[in-house]
Amino acid sequence: MHVLITGGAGFLGKALAARLLDRGHLAGAGGGDERIDQITLTDVVRAEGFDDPRVAQATGDIADPDLLERVITGATAAVFHLAAVVSGQAEEDFDLGMRVNLDGTRTLLEVCRRRGHRPRVVFASSVAVYGGALPEVVLESTPLTPQTSYGTQKAISELLVADYTRKGFVDGRSLRLPTVTVRPGKPNAAASSFASGIIREPVNGEESICPVDRLTRMWVISPESAVGGFIHAHDLPADRLGFNRSISLPGLSVTVGEMVDALERVAGADAVARIRWQKDPRITKLVDTWPGTLDPARARTLGFPQDENFDAIVRAYVESRATGR
Amino acid sequence: MHVLITGGAGFLGKALAARLLDRGHLAGAGGGDERIDQITLTDVVRAEGFDDPRVAQATGDIADPDLLERVITGATAAVFHLAAVVSGQAEEDFDLGMRVNLDGTRTLLEVCRRRGHRPRVVFASSVAVYGGALPEVVLESTPLTPQTSYGTQKAISELLVADYTRKGFVDGRSLRLPTVTVRPGKPNAAASSFASGIIREPVNGEESICPVDRLTRMWVISPESAVGGFIHAHDLPADRLGFNRSISLPGLSVTVGEMVDALERVAGADAVARIRWQKDPRITKLVDTWPGTLDPARARTLGFPQDENFDAIVRAYVESRATGR
Repeated sequence: MHVLITGGAGFLGKALAARLLDRGHLAGAGGGDERIDQITLTDVVRAEGFDDPRVAQATGDIADPDLLERVITGATAAVFHLAAVVSGQAEEDFDLGMRVNLDGTRTLLEVCRRRGHRPRVVFASSVAVYGGALPEVVLESTPLTPQTSYGTQKAISELLVADYTRKGFVDGRSLRLPTVTVRPGKPNAAASSFASGIIREPVNGEESICPVDRLTRMWVISPESAVGGFIHAHDLPADRLGFNRSISLPGLSVTVGEMVDALERVAGADAVARIRWQKDPRITKLVDTWPGTLDPARARTLGFPQDENFDAIVRAYVESRATGR
Repeated sequence: MHVLITGGAGFLGKALAARLLDRGHLAGAGGGDERIDQITLTDVVRAEGFDDPRVAQATGDIADPDLLERVITGATAAVFHLAAVVSGQAEEDFDLGMRVNLDGTRTLLEVCRRRGHRPRVVFASSVAVYGGALPEVVLESTPLTPQTSYGTQKAISELLVADYTRKGFVDGRSLRLPTVTVRPGKPNAAASSFASGIIREPVNGEESICPVDRLTRMWVISPESAVGGFIHAHDLPADRLGFNRSISLPGLSVTVGEMVDALERVAGADAVARIRWQKDPRITKLVDTWPGTLDPARARTLGFPQDENFDAIVRAYVESRATGR
């Protein structure tokens, strides 16, 4: 089988590709495992660090039908659609967000439909689909009134994935991702970027600015569990999902203060001293519209992987630096 | 002020235009009443029966930006967006539904945004945004899992109206319309067409086929209350709505059997005898995904007009035939 990963040069896309190359198989349309013969990574830039002969790369604009026509073929059995403009950027540049996050998803579903073989499509949605006057614990049945353009574009994409699935054009699954932390590398334009930065930079001996206060509650997941969630979602038989194709991944509900306390336990008080608390009203406003606690009952029933606690997430990041993986 | 009505040659569009011409004013941006100087009707065909000098007409495709660039000007203070491909047709012709019901709404919002003066936009959504495993009484907070492409396109459009409003591009209001009955004229491709047909044709001495059974429960509204709802929604001050710009219009919850009983009380047993019960699985399947009973608490609090009972709806139709209005 062939696999396509959009956003394949991003951190999660690369981590997913590496895990799939290790694993070597995914569930086929018939249910049994099938060998992965090719993984195509598509993104605006090439993904570095892949010399596996099974990896192909194609660079371009995800909203460009020509690119998607090239990378989605009749052999493409699995599509992991991770390409997106992040939350802060989609709020600053409305047109860019609409083009990449909405038109990109729609074009991808259209090309899959035209191929006619009903590929499995795993779509990376976000808890940013929730917003507004939220209950303390958000349920999967809480209505979607997103308060960011990013969340709006993700909610619309979920509706498209569901209808393309209902019509039999694709076999779709949308995952509402918690904030993924700890991401390696540099800060990005996501409003949630600090959730990695306040762990990553101090561990690396650098200063980090925290733009929200200690009591800000976040719904977070480790990169490992997020990647595991994508693969688990792909392999679930369609009949276990029914008509509702949106699933909230099981995360951890932690305050920023609790995240920093975990950092102290794992990396020491010196690390914590490298955090500068400097409130940013623009970021606070976006983050405050996202749910801090969800009830991921459905994902648990469906057997999705879950993080143990935030200390384990910090520890895994510290260890990944040591091993270089 | 200038007013634009899309779908202006349709039954509801024409009824809304006639009511606005009679009324002569709408709330302006400042809150006070402003005189309506012009009403532009746009649709694929011209609306017949308007010789009022305040009425302008423009025919074309609602998804064509050139048409919308022409009819939305800096003077357009109010847009009533009623143009749509109906449910049955959007299910049969997926591409047409996406183009008219999704791209049409998006293009309209985009042109309004480019004008820069934040016009009020009243969008005709539908209870078809609900679907799937619905509770007996659907609440406004019931999540949207539409089971038709029409409902999906309406739900997506609501999300767009909300985000364009949040960004300050328009001042939007989405109304979830119950099934409108009794529509005059001919049956159309809406799956709900029979809800008018089983009253209209028997009253007119003609046979009508009912494709669902007597126990099918429907959420209905008269044309008068629907038109009144559009105007009321337009005139509501933005601060009474807050961030949630979707409102379910107050309808009546009636079974098809109760509708026919009302027909008998108003028009006699001869009329009822003209109904032929002939189940259509395709229509039954679509109609069964729509809610039969909603709790329109918010619309009531906001003072939307409501029908008294179904007898009154039948009586109003019989009287409209006599008076020709």
